[in-house]
Amino acid sequence: MNRQELVGLIKERQSYLCVGLDTDIQKIPKHLLSYPDPVFAFNKAIIDATKDLCVAYKINTAFYECMGIRGWESLQRTVEYIPSGIFTIADAKRGDIGNTATQYAKTFFDTYKFDAVTVAPYMGEDSVAPFLSFNEKWAIVLGLTSNEGSKDFQLQKVGEEYLYEKVIRTVMEWGTPDNLMFVVGATQTAQLAAVRQLAPDHFFLVPGVGAQGGSLQEISSLAMNKDCGLLVNASRAIIYAGNGEDFATDARNAALQYQQEMSEYLEQAVAG
Amino acid sequence: MNRQELVGLIKERQSYLCVGLDTDIQKIPKHLLSYPDPVFAFNKAIIDATKDLCVAYKINTAFYECMGIRGWESLQRTVEYIPSGIFTIADAKRGDIGNTATQYAKTFFDTYKFDAVTVAPYMGEDSVAPFLSFNEKWAIVLGLTSNEGSKDFQLQKVGEEYLYEKVIRTVMEWGTPDNLMFVVGATQTAQLAAVRQLAPDHFFLVPGVGAQGGSLQEISSLAMNKDCGLLVNASRAIIYAGNGEDFATDARNAALQYQQEMSEYLEQAVAG
Repeated sequence: MNRQELVGLIKERQSYLCVGLDTDIQKIPKHLLSYPDPVFAFNKAIIDATKDLCVAYKINTAFYECMGIRGWESLQRTVEYIPSGIFTIADAKRGDIGNTATQYAKTFFDTYKFDAVTVAPYMGEDSVAPFLSFNEKWAIVLGLTSNEGSKDFQLQKVGEEYLYEKVIRTVMEWGTPDNLMFVVGATQTAQLAAVRQLAPDHFFLVPGVGAQGGSLQEISSLAMNKDCGLLVNASRAIIYAGNGEDFATDARNAALQYQQEMSEYLEQAVAG
Repeated sequence: MNRQELVGLIKERQSYLCVGLDTDIQKIPKHLLSYPDPVFAFNKAIIDATKDLCVAYKINTAFYECMGIRGWESLQRTVEYIPSGIFTIADAKRGDIGNTATQYAKTFFDTYKFDAVTVAPYMGEDSVAPFLSFNEKWAIVLGLTSNEGSKDFQLQKVGEEYLYEKVIRTVMEWGTPDNLMFVVGATQTAQLAAVRQLAPDHFFLVPGVGAQGGSLQEISSLAMNKDCGLLVNASRAIIYAGNGEDFATDARNAALQYQQEMSEYLEQAVAG
């Protein structure tokens, strides 16, 4: 999916919601465990219930990898089930030397047909560049993450700036706002305005709303740009909103609440 | 595998060779393509030919992931085929927030039974710690990598020290020499002695010998410690040493050359 299509989708749906399919077989409703592929059965129901409210799905590969081969089968079924026209993100945080990074890019863009993959920047340009050479595909590079550990290195000073600022500033030279986004955690409200100033045009994938405590209002007021420029992810707060037979309805209600709030912020941005 | 067993294996075999199974179906001898699982057939022959010369095998997951589910099947067959008593490394370079990192640790330690997994440090303590809580399992954290891109961030100054030094110094506080190693690239000879000084007791996994140009002699003289403390990886230089029917013999000869050279350096270290 290209940028124009993504921006169009956001306007049409009045939503910049990304639903995170961090599906853990230990946490899904028990009645699904009798299905041949319980994880896919869960995801299918969540997708059916939310596909008109979100603009993206993010699949956290760890939750599938830990189940071995049947996990990858669930992942493949899930990504194939997501309706075309919705942005798909492999949250895989890959990063390796050039020839290996190329294999990872092929994995997620060619083998599984994702639109985007999250990429770790520590190994530098040759580890990121291979993800930027596919037409209408995206690298989403870790900038400033939502977790406690972000202070260990990302918030250390490299000269006058934080490491995460150095990372974003440097990585911006390798791609464009049409093939490169950054991960910026929702809990990092003290930094959000600075990040937007640093990268005015790029989309940010913002995890950390919901279970991790980030505020949608703050994120939106601090980091929205003229094209919205945000994909705000909620995983647990949506997919585990309920745990009974009605879990998909509960998930829809949770997603709807986000979408309605987002629609207000989008209107305010147009008005402002 | 615990540290005592690893050190014992190195002494017994007079080798600190890690064979990297970066198996690319495009590069394996054509006669293997008629096998039901060509990648596993190749790996099986390489393992049979080298298993008495090396102390570790490193599986670069990217080369398997890009083949989809059948790639993971090849990976699983391969790791199960490696004789017990040889150290196994999933070169996966994972790194994510705590609850996701736990899933990755389970993936490689429980689902696939690797001894060790490579871990990216950018996201900080909660992304690394879950890999350090398994008995007789190892996290091998990226310190200073062998690629050109290492200069982009790893060789930037954070205060008085390089970022990679800050990373190694910080991560050392989270684990011990019994459950934590570092990746230090063979091409980084200017830094090797400094890294050894920083982490005198830890094992280093050293990729970049062979195709990437690192010198085994330099690495060994600069970074060996009293327990050897090195696992030197060669991938392409061994597994693609030949490309005909005799590829496994060619691989054995290449591995034997490394092992013989290593045996000299180990003797010199004992003598010195």
